[in-house]
Amino acid sequence: MIDQLIKLIVSTGAPIVVGLDPMMKFIPEHIQKAAFEEKGETLEGAAEAVWLYNKEIIDHIYDLIPAVKPQIAMYEQFGIPGLAAFQRTVNYCKEKGLIVIGDIKRGDIGSTSAAYAAAHLGKVQVGANVYAGFGEDFVTVNPYFGIDGVQPFIDVCKEEKKGLFLLVKTSNPSSGEFQDRLIDGRPLYEHVGEKVAAWGEQMMGTEGYSYVGAVVGATYPEQGRVLRKLMPYSFILVPGYGAQGASGKDLVQFFDAQGLGAIVNSSRGIIAAYQNEKYQKFGAEHFAEASRQAVIDMREDIDSALGEAGKD
Amino acid sequence: MIDQLIKLIVSTGAPIVVGLDPMMKFIPEHIQKAAFEEKGETLEGAAEAVWLYNKEIIDHIYDLIPAVKPQIAMYEQFGIPGLAAFQRTVNYCKEKGLIVIGDIKRGDIGSTSAAYAAAHLGKVQVGANVYAGFGEDFVTVNPYFGIDGVQPFIDVCKEEKKGLFLLVKTSNPSSGEFQDRLIDGRPLYEHVGEKVAAWGEQMMGTEGYSYVGAVVGATYPEQGRVLRKLMPYSFILVPGYGAQGASGKDLVQFFDAQGLGAIVNSSRGIIAAYQNEKYQKFGAEHFAEASRQAVIDMREDIDSALGEAGKD
Repeated sequence: MIDQLIKLIVSTGAPIVVGLDPMMKFIPEHIQKAAFEEKGETLEGAAEAVWLYNKEIIDHIYDLIPAVKPQIAMYEQFGIPGLAAFQRTVNYCKEKGLIVIGDIKRGDIGSTSAAYAAAHLGKVQVGANVYAGFGEDFVTVNPYFGIDGVQPFIDVCKEEKKGLFLLVKTSNPSSGEFQDRLIDGRPLYEHVGEKVAAWGEQMMGTEGYSYVGAVVGATYPEQGRVLRKLMPYSFILVPGYGAQGASGKDLVQFFDAQGLGAIVNSSRGIIAAYQNEKYQKFGAEHFAEASRQAVIDMREDIDSALGEAGKD
Repeated sequence: MIDQLIKLIVSTGAPIVVGLDPMMKFIPEHIQKAAFEEKGETLEGAAEAVWLYNKEIIDHIYDLIPAVKPQIAMYEQFGIPGLAAFQRTVNYCKEKGLIVIGDIKRGDIGSTSAAYAAAHLGKVQVGANVYAGFGEDFVTVNPYFGIDGVQPFIDVCKEEKKGLFLLVKTSNPSSGEFQDRLIDGRPLYEHVGEKVAAWGEQMMGTEGYSYVGAVVGATYPEQGRVLRKLMPYSFILVPGYGAQGASGKDLVQFFDAQGLGAIVNSSRGIIAAYQNEKYQKFGAEHFAEASRQAVIDMREDIDSALGEAGKD
């Protein structure tokens, strides 16, 4: 799956993943109204609004990008109907040829980790039958437990040819509270990065990168530079672009010399672009066209930053 | 809710939480058969088996214990029907007067953490209506993000009078890989414990303990002793009893001088007791009676260990 991701990044020229994180305040009035008219102001109605919103955005951007990253929390808050909308979104994106990174940040141990891995990447046995879980292609995983928490995910990935992104250095302001603490003179996130690199070596794709990648926040470009070197075979998923403050020039450190090795996430910057002054002219009715333009602009921003850095 | 938990621990004399982590291999044949006959060998059938199994166990033990801890991964692996069984289990346990600790180990930042908090402890707005989420009383949370990830949970807990257990030192063998690394001469888990204690001070119950508790594995009793002192107001949720190897005498360090301050989890040791040689005589048909006996024995084990330590 990492090979497929790289292939799609090259063919689209867009090392971009769009975060499908549908908060109610992003969903235009007319979509909410249509959904509530059909299903009421219920959890089902909210889930329908989420689905209609996602579908229109996907239809407008799927040809431009390699991957999407739905954040499951945004669906989980609407209970069972919300999770059904998550499932529907995953299925629809896969139909459209997109790679789906489930942003689930699960992390536990042993049989529990194995159950999460089965739920999102693998299969589950019921009597004589076998069922696929939610069916993402990659998931994000929290490394706090050490290898006990990660190995069950790796095992399922090996079997299913799927992949992981392990949290190394997160994009939030307080990420340093634990992640930056010095251990033997080096921050915790470097130690985590080293482990991620080592764990990934047991699972290499054919394009020079491992199925086991890392999450490193765009808001920490200097750390990105260090981690890029420390994890030469780990693809880096980079959140924090746009709304969280990072721009194209902050990103070049995350890429390798060929302009590969990283994929940059933007969520509200794309899906709620119509609420941004820059794209206001599209209006709420044409929110998905605003999203399309925002993807094009983001691609251009990254492309020119990589060009200036001689990485293209 | 922490006050209510303490009250129930005192009234039952059982600082015990039963982990409702229904793996298929634990569910007796006759239950699986009944479920599959009704719903087929489908995800719905698996969810029905899980529900029937849980219900019978709950019916046999609810009067002995203060709380249950369903592990959501075990439900999530059966997709939407599995999560519906999780919901049904939470609701049923609450009807029975049990406190429900959702073992979800979620952790993310900002609006995403807020969405998880709404999903499991809080409420969500849809149009003019407000809906409760899955409705647990406590959830477990991963601290890797620092306070950005925890504060949204604390905010919801304040509003809803609910609580948290933050991962500090987990029970698995590789938990030391990152958690034991020395920072300024002390292991990471002590630094995390100190933060948990500090975060908890903003949210004290009336019984001397905070709404913000900690998870510390029973498999690390020495660390339990240190952390008990470091987090004097943090209730400790202690996994690792029984199947993971710890026994009553390993637990006394986690309790305060009054024999309070900790609640010990057992999952398969209780719910799959009938598969244990010690309780084989009950047979699969009477699996829930075996669970009841296992709870009684566990209470006795902890009680006598606390008695020997002069903590009762």
